[in-house]
Order: sequence, then C-alpha cells, then structure tokens
Amino acid sequence: MLRVRRRDYIGTLLRYLPTCRTGMLPGVKAAIVSIGTELTNGLTVDTNSAWLSLELASIGWDVGLHVTVPDDRDAIAAAVRQGVAQSDAVFVNGGLGPTADDLTRESISEAVGQGLSRDPELLRQIESYFDKLGRSMPESNKRQADIPIGGHGIANTCGTAPGVRVMFDGKTIYAMPGVPREMKVMFERSILPELPVDSNRTSTVVRTIRCFGAGEANIGEQIADLMTSGRQPVVGITAHDSIISVRVIARDAAIAEAEVADIRGRLGQLVFGEDATTLQSAVGQLLLDQKVTVSVAESCTGGMLGGRLTDVSGSSGYFQGGVVTYAYEAKTDLLGVPADLMMQKGAVNGEVASMMASACRRRFGTDYALSITGVAGPGGGSDEKPVGLVWFGLADAGGVVVEKRLFGTHLTRWEIRDRACKVALNLLRLRMTGESG
Amino acid sequence: MLRVRRRDYIGTLLRYLPTCRTGMLPGVKAAIVSIGTELTNGLTVDTNSAWLSLELASIGWDVGLHVTVPDDRDAIAAAVRQGVAQSDAVFVNGGLGPTADDLTRESISEAVGQGLSRDPELLRQIESYFDKLGRSMPESNKRQADIPIGGHGIANTCGTAPGVRVMFDGKTIYAMPGVPREMKVMFERSILPELPVDSNRTSTVVRTIRCFGAGEANIGEQIADLMTSGRQPVVGITAHDSIISVRVIARDAAIAEAEVADIRGRLGQLVFGEDATTLQSAVGQLLLDQKVTVSVAESCTGGMLGGRLTDVSGSSGYFQGGVVTYAYEAKTDLLGVPADLMMQKGAVNGEVASMMASACRRRFGTDYALSITGVAGPGGGSDEKPVGLVWFGLADAGGVVVEKRLFGTHLTRWEIRDRACKVALNLLRLRMTGESG
Repeated sequence: MLRVRRRDYIGTLLRYLPTCRTGMLPGVKAAIVSIGTELTNGLTVDTNSAWLSLELASIGWDVGLHVTVPDDRDAIAAAVRQGVAQSDAVFVNGGLGPTADDLTRESISEAVGQGLSRDPELLRQIESYFDKLGRSMPESNKRQADIPIGGHGIANTCGTAPGVRVMFDGKTIYAMPGVPREMKVMFERSILPELPVDSNRTSTVVRTIRCFGAGEANIGEQIADLMTSGRQPVVGITAHDSIISVRVIARDAAIAEAEVADIRGRLGQLVFGEDATTLQSAVGQLLLDQKVTVSVAESCTGGMLGGRLTDVSGSSGYFQGGVVTYAYEAKTDLLGVPADLMMQKGAVNGEVASMMASACRRRFGTDYALSITGVAGPGGGSDEKPVGLVWFGLADAGGVVVEKRLFGTHLTRWEIRDRACKVALNLLRLRMTGESG
Repeated sequence: MLRVRRRDYIGTLLRYLPTCRTGMLPGVKAAIVSIGTELTNGLTVDTNSAWLSLELASIGWDVGLHVTVPDDRDAIAAAVRQGVAQSDAVFVNGGLGPTADDLTRESISEAVGQGLSRDPELLRQIESYFDKLGRSMPESNKRQADIPIGGHGIANTCGTAPGVRVMFDGKTIYAMPGVPREMKVMFERSILPELPVDSNRTSTVVRTIRCFGAGEANIGEQIADLMTSGRQPVVGITAHDSIISVRVIARDAAIAEAEVADIRGRLGQLVFGEDATTLQSAVGQLLLDQKVTVSVAESCTGGMLGGRLTDVSGSSGYFQGGVVTYAYEAKTDLLGVPADLMMQKGAVNGEVASMMASACRRRFGTDYALSITGVAGPGGGSDEKPVGLVWFGLADAGGVVVEKRLFGTHLTRWEIRDRACKVALNLLRLRMTGESG
C-alpha cells in the first residue's frame, strides 16, 4: 500500500499529540461513498474520491474501498452499510442538495435505522447564508437541515448544505456535499482535525517535480533506472497538457531530497518547479526576484497568456498589462504593425511577432514583453501556414528574439493556445534564468 | 436511473439489428470494478469507470455500481463477487500487468472458485508482441497468459495484457487492462460488439439546458414539480462554476422536446443555450447573427475574457481585440482614464468601468465593448472595496451602462475572475436579446 504525507511536519505532530491518549491504531480503514447518477452514468468523472483518499492517506489511513452509487435510496443505504461493515469510518459525498433527487440524508437515516429530525440551529445557518446574499431562503432548502436522530450537522461555510456526522455500530459516517469546493473546505475545516492520526503510517514523503520542454518518454528515459519496479524510493511519471510531473515517494524526507536532487541534476532546465508551481508562478517569482516587469501582446491566444500571468496573486507587482490584437487593424492601431506587411505576408511570421513584442514593450514601458501570433485552428490554416504554427517574440533591453513552433495537428484549438502560452512563459523563464532554450 | 444515448442513430440501429434474435432484455444491469492502489490512495483519478458507463449506457445498460479496490486479492475477489450478485455482468479494469502487485487474474479465479491455467495461445500472442518490438519476453510477462479454468482470453492489440472473460453463476465477468487506451480499444473491439443491446432503453433522448444568472436552488424551485422522484421524463439539475444545467432524459425525442420547451418557457432569459453551448459561444452566435463586433477592456480578469471569447472558432468574425489594463498607468495610457481620478477613488468603481468601456469601444471601433474592473483577491481588498467587488461596463452606440457585483468572499481568485467573465458575457447576451438583466 502506498502511504502519503503532506509536507506539514508541524501539522502532523500537532494532530498526533492530542490523540496520544487514544493510543496507536491498528490500521485505520476508511471507505468512501460517492453519490450521484451523473457519476454512475459516466457524465461526470468522480474526482472527490481521489482527493479524499489523499487527505486520509496524509494521516495514515487506508482507504480500502470507493463505491459510487446513483441517486437511489436503496443503493445509497446499501453502500453506506457496506462501508460501515468493512471500515472504521465512512466518508460519503454528494446528494445533500435541496432538490428531490438529493437523497443522502434519507438514505443514511435508513441505513442507521433512525428517523430524520429538522435541526433548528442548522436551519438558522442556512437562513443566514441566504440573508448574506440578500435573498430569502427557498422552501426547498429547509430539508437540508434534516439530520438523522442521534447525529450532528457539520457547518458548511461555502454553501447551503450542512454535512452530517452520525455514529452507527461503533463506526462514524460523515456526509459531505458533492460540490468539490464545498466538500474540501468542510473536510479540512471540520472533519480532518478530529480524525485520529495513524502515525505509524504517516512517515512517507511525496515530492513532485514539474517539467516542461520535453515529452514524457524523453524525460522517462533520462530517469529510467530510477523507475524500475519494486525500487525504493518509488519514482513515477505522468503527463498532463504538456506538463510532465515526476513524483518521488520515499520513506523519509532525507531520502526524498537526495532523489529529487539527483533527478533535478539530470533534467536540468526542464524543471521549472515543484508541487503546486505553475509556469506562470515560476515566471512571476523570477520577475519579482529580479524586480522587473512584463507586458504581453497576444493574437491567437486572445488574452489567455495575460489571464495565466494574472492567475497569480500579487502579479500586479510585475505585470503592467497587455494588448489582445486579434484583428489586423488592432495590430496596426495598437502596435504599429504595417497593414501592407500583413496583407502581403499575413500576421503569422517572425517579423510580425518581433514587431508586436518590441512595440508592446515600448508601449507599456516594461523590461520584458512577450508576443504570440499563430494559427489556433481548426480553421484558418494553409499549406504555408498550417494549423498549429505559432510564432513567439521576446523583447528586452537588448533587442528582440523570435521563435517558431509547429504544434501537432491532432491538438484541439484550446490545446494549441494552451501550449503556446506555456512556450511563451517558458521562453521568458529560460531567458531570466540565463539558460538557452 | 438515468439512461443515456450517444447521438449516433445509425450506430445504435446497427447494433440493434444483429441482436434481435436474443430478444428483449429486462433492464440489463452492470457493475464496474476498478482495481489499483493508486486509485484508492487518490494518486490517480479513476476515469475508466465513467468511460465504461457511457459506453454501456449507449446500448441501454444501467450501471448500478462502481467499486474501486486496492491491489489486494481479498478486496478484488469480494468486489467481483458483489458485482456478480447485483448485476448481469461485471466489467473489471486494472491489475492485469506483469508485476507482483497485479492480482486480478488470481482474484477472479478465487471469486469464481477455479484455478488458473496458462493458455498457450495467449502466451504466443504475448511473445509475438515483444518480437515486434525486437525484444525478448521478460519472464514476468508469462503470468499474463494465465486464465481461470473455463474462461477465455481477450486479445490485447495495444499492449501485453490479454483480457479475460469468464462466466460465473450465469453472469459474465470481463477483465480489461487499466491503461485507458488499452482498455478502450479492447472494449470497443472485442467486448462491446458481443453485448446484447437493450433497445427498450436505447431510444432515450438526453437534452441539457444551460442556464446562468440564478442559483441552483432558485432554478430548482421553478421546475420542482418536474423533478419528483419516479416521474417520466426524468429531470435533474446540477451546478458547475455558476453554470446551472437542467438535464431532461425522455423516452423519445418528441417527449424530450415538449419538456424542454416547458422548462425554457419557465426559465426564460436564464437559459443561454443547450448541450455544449457556452456563454461565449452563445454570445458569439448573437454577434454573428446581428453582424456586429465587440472589444474588451480588462483589468482584474487580465485577459481571461478575451481568452474565453476567442475560445470559439470563428470569433475573428466579431472580435477585434482588447486591452488588458492591469496597472493604473495602462488604464491612463491606453484608455485615457485620468490618473488623479484613480488616485482619489481607485480603479474599482462605476466611473472607471464606464470610461474603460467607452474608450475601448472608440479605440477598436467596435459596436460593443465590455469592461471589467474589480478586486480578485485574495489580497487587495478593503472595507470599502472588498475582495469580490467587480464593476462592469457595456458600451454601445447609445452610450454606456455599468453594473456592480459583489461575489462571495468564499470564492477563490480564479472563481471571482471566472464569474466576472461570465457576468460580462451575460450582460452582453441580455442586451443583444433585448432582455433586461
């Protein structure tokens, strides 16, 4: 079994100390029940189970079972009972909404053999949620205050549906909303802190190295000897939208650090950060560290690059703004790109990319400027300028350089624009770290 | 139970005809078992279950249960037995690899009470797979040719692991690889064609109505009588990032259309489209239909709105471009917003929103211009201008109107910016459809 710990030493210690009095636990097992017909009919992928599993693993719990059932009272009750029979605690998510197809409260009360009772305090909490929005509480939301007799409500700080905690047969059942954000906040705020930590199993460290600029197979080959089956530490590799993640799972922090250092040494400039770092947050940090500013001139990405840069809180410290010069006229009016140049040669070439970057830099008075002009598809391509062809410009005090990429035609319009934003950010990152592309 | 049909009339008909001889089936039920500790510990999200569910729904099968278990023989055997007890067929994926933690073959043979037998033909297929790669077959791959006695192997055309098909207690168990691509190919090539089609349930039509501008509970109340349990057609409601989706599942297209018309009549301007329609594609269609153009002036959204508009292929037909005036100076330089005004009153107010929209419209020469200026958080808020406060401007030939929103502080930075883009698009949509906001 893999066991995972968040890098929160102090948090783990704090969680452990209060539970010393309960003694050590012999392998706490959890079951997760996800409710929703949109899950069983495949219209929605269940991501809540995976998230809950990671959270539970961080305190050393084993998840022995995920069960997903439709909005059906019998199916939900059966799954909850199965969870109770097999585990020490059952974590249910979904079906706590106000509508007629939300059946979790009734089903849990059926599974534990109790009736439902409307809790006045929870009702007040729900009313107050609507008050804050300046609205009156709809009738249908009242049922969200119903709790199995003997159970307790769990405050929902992000939405209307209170959670439920109820004991049955010596086991604890927790019910949370299915809306991922509401579930996560409720779990971290009200449930996780009261769960006993199995400290025997929390000693595993996970480090994730984020890479961009080569494919999964290429990076895999550079660390192939580290990924053989059964080896410790465990090293795995996944790819998502051209970001390659190398994950190290080790038995302690020192071993993990040594492995990470080895891998980073081998992969060099391909590595832009770890864990939650994105290309835009890595670039943002470099801009802050070097006390420089950036602006952007976008065509085919339409604002996506600026949107990415400003995803990062505090980006006003280095991002002045940008222009989205989607039409030829906008390129001429805002960036001075000559109309007849574009009439002759189009807008997707190095010359235009270069002019866009230079003009943008002057316009905004920034240290750096990035430009992107390309064919995002699916229409608009030609033999000479196929779909996926994108030119990039990077202007700084020393001048402007351009680069060309041809993204694969199997990529969708969004994917081509997404990869273009990532390439642009990476060009700036490599420039600022003094490495060559 | 929800039943789903792919909108592939011909495919459905072709699948139906060959199975006429098997007669009609009374509600075929399937269970899906996904195997892998990387799933139960949350390191990998299970997408195979959802994919299989959609495939099965396309031939009218009900999936009553998804179970996910770790690489543990007892857990797998128990899940398979549970599936057999509750369903007509069990679809297992994962655990067919060559390594020591791949236990599906042993577990299934335990569940069905049979031993394993090494199939010489399957062994040859696996050897030939390695031959083609110019490699010799590793010893560990031999176990992939083991099949429960009485069962059959299923050829894997993309990898080494053959699938397994075995009957037990009158039910059929199918085991497929966990690698998504291998599973999908094997399922479509060798399993789906032999599954009987429940034609009673393949004539089901699904219509999804997309709404924006009210919450899930509010919309739910307006259609509460349509959502009572057991009613036909089935009507359900879900929310995702403030887009409310009302799904109608009916037995034929005429019934579905009547229900959709009723719901659209009740919800009025809250409805912006159906199925894959987004606010940006709905607005794009209106702009094309009315042959008008738009530009955008963004501050806190940083380019996200332009990025959304240009997500739509063909948006060059109506989108000229935009400016991302993130810093005060950019608002002054590009849109003429007076610096002293912003010094006194900041940039998040109706006056600035109004100036941004008007100036943008003039700058780009478009029929419409949208502006957004707000506090995206988590920092940057004050008592007067809290996080989540966003002002919008909409300029057209007649002048400019502004609107204010206060998005809940429980929303993340991305969510506030996402909602802001949606509100902006919706303002334009309502203006163009002649409805009031």
